[in-house]
Amino acid sequence: MEFDETIAAGDPCVEASASAASDDMVTVIICSSCRDASGSDARPRPGELLGDATRAQNSASNIRVEQVECLGNCKRRLSAALTKPGAWSYVFGDLTPDSAGDLIAGAQLFHTSTDGVLPWRGRPDSLKRGLVARIPPLALFKDKT
Amino acid sequence: MEFDETIAAGDPCVEASASAASDDMVTVIICSSCRDASGSDARPRPGELLGDATRAQNSASNIRVEQVECLGNCKRRLSAALTKPGAWSYVFGDLTPDSAGDLIAGAQLFHTSTDGVLPWRGRPDSLKRGLVARIPPLALFKDKT
Repeated sequence: MEFDETIAAGDPCVEASASAASDDMVTVIICSSCRDASGSDARPRPGELLGDATRAQNSASNIRVEQVECLGNCKRRLSAALTKPGAWSYVFGDLTPDSAGDLIAGAQLFHTSTDGVLPWRGRPDSLKRGLVARIPPLALFKDKT
Repeated sequence: MEFDETIAAGDPCVEASASAASDDMVTVIICSSCRDASGSDARPRPGELLGDATRAQNSASNIRVEQVECLGNCKRRLSAALTKPGAWSYVFGDLTPDSAGDLIAGAQLFHTSTDGVLPWRGRPDSLKRGLVARIPPLALFKDKT
């Protein structure tokens, strides 16, 4: 079990960019502590490199790129999440430092979605094969009768 | 890849209980389509049994139990998520139909948390070993400078 209790129990250490979210903004959240298949602890970690590359490749005002210390998906190597207010949230693993373009493409696709679901059609292959989990928005359960 | 495109692309099929969320309510979301290690398609699926058992064991007004068709975590068998408004969201796998008590215990622990993090100490072992991923709340990135 590689998950670090000190990270899990402590305050989330967030390296956030200077941005404020709009209601339809897609947030790409990248785990900056992820190791690659070599398992090396060398810094910068491959996850951080992926975060930096994704931020550098993002030119859309409706997409923001954030890094956190751990997404808890340590068994599936480089990890990232796609989230949008009121929509399902998605976690992907098995990424590489070269996955930045796929994450931006996935975020753009997600932004076009009107039903809160990241479309399967048109999704980069790495975001199909690498799907780890998805979580529904809490709004989905409100006012059910 | 067992993830079902028709579920991914379609409207999320939700079997929700009649409840409305309060600001500190913990929602346990259980994948009702999950198979166990046998891989059997027989109905009811083990995931549905886990959902029914968890709902039956829940007597807390600040915890609600919901079922969805797929949490996308098909590689790790029975799956569930713990969510709370403004807090990190957690996905767990490798659960069994007997994990209902652990999910309720985890939800109660989560409800006591004041920092948005599910405590590691006191967490049932199945929710340590079975951690699949966690996603930070979007509020974590708001108004960063």
